[in-house]
Amino acid sequence: MIVVLAGGVGAARFLEGLVRVVPPKDIFVVVNTGDDEEFFGLRVCPDFDIITYTLAGLVDPEKGWGIKGDTFNCLDMLSRYGYETWFLLGDRDLATHIHRTHLLKKGYTIFEIAEDIRKRLGIECQIAPMTNEFVKTKVITKEAGELDFQVYFVKRRTQDTVIEVKFQNIEKAKPAPGILDAIESADGIIISPSNPIVSIGPILAIRGIRDALQSTEAKIVAISPIVGGKTIKGPADRMLQSLGYDVSPVGVAELYKDFLDVMIIDTIDAECKKKIEALGIKAIITNTIMKSIEDKVNLAKAAVEAFKLI
Amino acid sequence: MIVVLAGGVGAARFLEGLVRVVPPKDIFVVVNTGDDEEFFGLRVCPDFDIITYTLAGLVDPEKGWGIKGDTFNCLDMLSRYGYETWFLLGDRDLATHIHRTHLLKKGYTIFEIAEDIRKRLGIECQIAPMTNEFVKTKVITKEAGELDFQVYFVKRRTQDTVIEVKFQNIEKAKPAPGILDAIESADGIIISPSNPIVSIGPILAIRGIRDALQSTEAKIVAISPIVGGKTIKGPADRMLQSLGYDVSPVGVAELYKDFLDVMIIDTIDAECKKKIEALGIKAIITNTIMKSIEDKVNLAKAAVEAFKLI
Repeated sequence: MIVVLAGGVGAARFLEGLVRVVPPKDIFVVVNTGDDEEFFGLRVCPDFDIITYTLAGLVDPEKGWGIKGDTFNCLDMLSRYGYETWFLLGDRDLATHIHRTHLLKKGYTIFEIAEDIRKRLGIECQIAPMTNEFVKTKVITKEAGELDFQVYFVKRRTQDTVIEVKFQNIEKAKPAPGILDAIESADGIIISPSNPIVSIGPILAIRGIRDALQSTEAKIVAISPIVGGKTIKGPADRMLQSLGYDVSPVGVAELYKDFLDVMIIDTIDAECKKKIEALGIKAIITNTIMKSIEDKVNLAKAAVEAFKLI
Repeated sequence: MIVVLAGGVGAARFLEGLVRVVPPKDIFVVVNTGDDEEFFGLRVCPDFDIITYTLAGLVDPEKGWGIKGDTFNCLDMLSRYGYETWFLLGDRDLATHIHRTHLLKKGYTIFEIAEDIRKRLGIECQIAPMTNEFVKTKVITKEAGELDFQVYFVKRRTQDTVIEVKFQNIEKAKPAPGILDAIESADGIIISPSNPIVSIGPILAIRGIRDALQSTEAKIVAISPIVGGKTIKGPADRMLQSLGYDVSPVGVAELYKDFLDVMIIDTIDAECKKKIEALGIKAIITNTIMKSIEDKVNLAKAAVEAFKLI
C-alpha cells in the first residue's frame, strides 16, 4: 500500500501518473479538507473533488478543477436569488455537492460519502478525506484580516499577504477511519507536490497524523511544489515567503524534516541538494514539471523508485 | 383584493391573463403545495414554481413548467450518483430548489421563502403557499396501491386508476399567514381551472379555509377545468370519473357547491348551465380555452365581470 498525502491540482496530476505505475487499489490517498466550504447550503470539498474528477477522467484539463464542458446555468440563476457566485460551481459539478449534502443530512460521514462518490465514479484507489470533522482553514492577511480560505483563494485571488494560517476545529478533528493504520503499515508514503502550508499543513495538523509519520517504518518521499523559486499553480511561493520560510525545496524540506526521508526536486533546483541533505533528507533530482501524461508517469516512477534507494 | 386559489399550469395560464386585467399588487394567490416533494434532499414546490416562473416570464411555454431553454446537466450527473431522474429538474430550475432548501435549513418558513422568491423574480402579486406544513398528497390507486403524488403524476404518467386521495399531515396544517384574512376581506375570489381533487382539493382541506369560503361576503367564481368532458392538461377527467363524480362542469360544481356563486363554463358545455344553476350556482358561458394571451385576458375579464353580475 502506498499512502499519498494530497491537496488539489498538483496532487491530482501526480496521482494521474501514480495510478499508471502502482495498481490503483494499492493506493490510499489522504486528502485535505481544510478548504471545504458551504455554498448555498451545499457542502463542497474542492480538493477531494479535484482528485476524483481527475482520476475519473471528468476534470476540465485546462483549469485542473471542475468538470470539462460543464455549464453554469444553475449558478447564473442562483445569482438572481442574491447569492455571490465567485466560486464557479458548474451544473454537473453541483450534482456532487447536492449528493454529498443529501447524504450528510441523512447522517453519513464525509468519509463514507467520499467512498460512495469515488466508487460511483469508478475510482479504484481509496481517497480518504483527512477527517470527518468540518475543519476550516482560515488565512490571516495583512490587508483584509482573517479570511475563509476560499475567500482568500478564489474571491480575492490570493492577492493578500498571508501572515498566519489557522485551522478552525482542528482540536476536535480525529483522522478519518483507516488513515493511521495505512500510514503505519504503508510500503511507502508520498507527500504530493501540494502547498505545504494550506494543503498538506491541515493534514499534518490532525491529531496523530504527524506522530504516525514520525513513527512509521515506511519511507516518506515528498515532491517539492516549489520549482525555481515559484509554484506551478497557487500561492505557495508568496505564502512561504510572507510566513518567513525559504521559497525553495529547502524551505519545504524544513517543514517536513521531522519525518521526511527523501525530497524530489526539479533539475532547475539542483543546487538545493546539499542544503536538503544537510537536514538529513536525501534529495533526488529529476524533472518535476507535469505537462504530459509521460511527465506524470515519470515523476510517479521516480517517487516509487525513491523508496528503494533508502 | 382578488384572491385566487391555484394549482399549476391551468392556474398559471389564467393568472397570466388576470395580471393584465387587475393590478398585480391587488392579487393574492393561494397555491397548492400538496404535490411538493423532496428530490436529492432538495425541496421542490411544483405548483408554486410553475406560477412564479410563468408570471416572471421564465417558464417553458411549450411544457408549461420548468424554465425555457434550461439544460439538464446536473440531473444527468445525479443519475451517476444513483438517483432516479424521472422528475425533470433543469439546471436553472434547481437554483430555486437549492435556494429554498437553504432557507428552510436556516429556519425560514415556506411562506417566507415564497415571498423572497417571488420578489426576487420581480412578481408583484402575492403568492402564498397554502400552508407552512409539509402536506403530501397521496394517491391510492387500483393498480399500484398508495403512491406519492409525483410518482403517480410524473413517474407513472397518471396511468393508474385513482380510487382515493389523501392529504398526509393535513390535520396539522394551518393556513399560511394572511390567507384567512384575504378570503374574508376579498373583493372577489376565483377558483382557477385546476384539478378540483388534487390541486384545489388540498387547499380546501386545510383547516379553516373551506369555512372561510363559506362565510366570506366576497363572491366566489370558479372556472371549470373540464371542457367537453375532458381536461386540457392532466388527469382530472379520469380522476373525477374513477372517484364517482360527473366528468363535466356539473361534477366540478358539485365539489364546490357549498361556497360557489358562479361557475364559468366553456361554450362547448352550454348544456350544463341548467344543471349547474339547479345547484344554486350561476353559470356563465364563454371560451375557456387559453391558447393566446388574448384568450387568457378575456377569461380573466369574464371572471372579474362575474363578480359584478351577482
